Amino acid sequence: MNDRVTKLFGIKYPIIQAGMVWCSGWRLAAAVSNAGGLGLIGSGSMHPELLEEHIVKCKSATNNPFGVNVPLLYPQVEEIFEKIVRQGVKIVFTSAGSPAKWTSFLKNHGIIVVHVVASVKSALKCVEAGVDAIVAEGFEAGGHNGKEETTTFALIPHIRQSISLPLIAAGGIATGRGMVAAMALGAYGVQIGSRFAASEESSAHPKFKQKIIEAKDGDTLLTLKKIVPVRLMKNGFFEKVHQMESAGASSEELIQILGKGRSKKGMFEGDLEEGELEIGQVSSMINDIMPAGSIVEEIMREFETVKLEICNW
Amino acid sequence: MNDRVTKLFGIKYPIIQAGMVWCSGWRLAAAVSNAGGLGLIGSGSMHPELLEEHIVKCKSATNNPFGVNVPLLYPQVEEIFEKIVRQGVKIVFTSAGSPAKWTSFLKNHGIIVVHVVASVKSALKCVEAGVDAIVAEGFEAGGHNGKEETTTFALIPHIRQSISLPLIAAGGIATGRGMVAAMALGAYGVQIGSRFAASEESSAHPKFKQKIIEAKDGDTLLTLKKIVPVRLMKNGFFEKVHQMESAGASSEELIQILGKGRSKKGMFEGDLEEGELEIGQVSSMINDIMPAGSIVEEIMREFETVKLEICNW
Repeated sequence: MNDRVTKLFGIKYPIIQAGMVWCSGWRLAAAVSNAGGLGLIGSGSMHPELLEEHIVKCKSATNNPFGVNVPLLYPQVEEIFEKIVRQGVKIVFTSAGSPAKWTSFLKNHGIIVVHVVASVKSALKCVEAGVDAIVAEGFEAGGHNGKEETTTFALIPHIRQSISLPLIAAGGIATGRGMVAAMALGAYGVQIGSRFAASEESSAHPKFKQKIIEAKDGDTLLTLKKIVPVRLMKNGFFEKVHQMESAGASSEELIQILGKGRSKKGMFEGDLEEGELEIGQVSSMINDIMPAGSIVEEIMREFETVKLEICNW
Repeated sequence: MNDRVTKLFGIKYPIIQAGMVWCSGWRLAAAVSNAGGLGLIGSGSMHPELLEEHIVKCKSATNNPFGVNVPLLYPQVEEIFEKIVRQGVKIVFTSAGSPAKWTSFLKNHGIIVVHVVASVKSALKCVEAGVDAIVAEGFEAGGHNGKEETTTFALIPHIRQSISLPLIAAGGIATGRGMVAAMALGAYGVQIGSRFAASEESSAHPKFKQKIIEAKDGDTLLTLKKIVPVRLMKNGFFEKVHQMESAGASSEELIQILGKGRSKKGMFEGDLEEGELEIGQVSSMINDIMPAGSIVEEIMREFETVKLEICNW
């Protein structure tokens, strides 16, 4: 297997656990890193001080590499990066913004920088900005998403033929079978969100985890496209937004109904009706709440089985 | 390689050329069937008499199996099926409607019936209706599409684990690499539209073919969701619809702006601004107008190469 991703991070398996709001604190990141993947602390739902606490705890919970995901559109990005540098974090995934602004700052501090994109155009900007690798995330992914709506199947091969950086596929992947398919399309590794959001070590509210494993196909939809497109599980809040959008609501009206703290309310506090529930389409294929380490092992076992299956075609 | 699809149709390669409006007449279907795939005449843009003419010509242009695609929402479905039975067509793909109504009629006439679905729920209905195989089509596909917006990556494995019928993947596939990925996800064969829409034997207007090979990622979007969701290339007509939708247009208003003959105007007559241009996201990966037979050969060559690549991981 091509080892560009495993070598870059110094990990055993090319499985990255996506940095997610309200789900991926130090417990989840350390569990994935201990199992041979790359765990990411999701800083998007943390104040700088809380992030620092999570980094410190993660360092004492694993001797393996781990990283921090930083959505660039959140406030306090500067303080977040200050904590990251101070704590000697070696790997940073940036998303939801331009890679131009922070990449050289991070690289000057010896940090490996990975940026998340949803289009070929953004991938080319990453090359210009000097990032070390990119995550290409398809339309089926949970949470924030691209305006182009390009799916994993269409996006990965196109980016692979357009740039030569180590490429990590995201969106729709939760199993070893999906990992083989993503790598057949041209990725060197995979980033997995939803499956880990429903893991034992995820800090998501138990009710939200339960909702994930009960999800059927068609239970999520990309919404709030006039603000920032986000894939949500259908619930009371989603239906309200959906009706407003259908009637032509402006971005101002949508920002108002969204208000503050919707994702915390849904994903962390377990208000399944009024909260924002960010999750991917692949939630329909997730049926158990498992320890994150067992998820990594199961994926790698299935990966090997499916690989052999293909050899025997 | 699992031979459930090739055996069912009596073909050499598990590559089905999608039946498409304004693109797939007898020339394209015969070319694909002659190359070892399964060509489909797209009846959606044909009056029953014209369809009959295409069937007759296709029979004299190939000795290999071919079929007809019938979108069930079009008028004159009854007359279409009458011609199909009279001309002794052996394979029918139905789409855009329920498989319950016509499947037993067709099977009573010794016809192999395949139905196109976009959700697990519809796949289960196909089993009930007694179809012989199903095509599962993802969100990235061109033309009419499902309300669930489930992508190929999320849809195929879920349907594969839910039903045991021969499964054909569609949406986002244009290359041998895509074919390997689709089959890794659990399909036994692939249905390819956009790539053949841009082939030499396609009856699409040369200007539309040129537009397809120039397309970049993000150049299509699923639209007209309040009527029947359809993936269109962005152009003047699309922008008009998109603005109306954004302002909350009703389905009645959208039906009015759509009018009659939009897809003919765009795809067959070459009016790239005012016409409807149905095409998939994978158009961004299509760079040449090739003979359909060469497309089949190229896909199979790449399929074998990528398969070996995976064996050596």
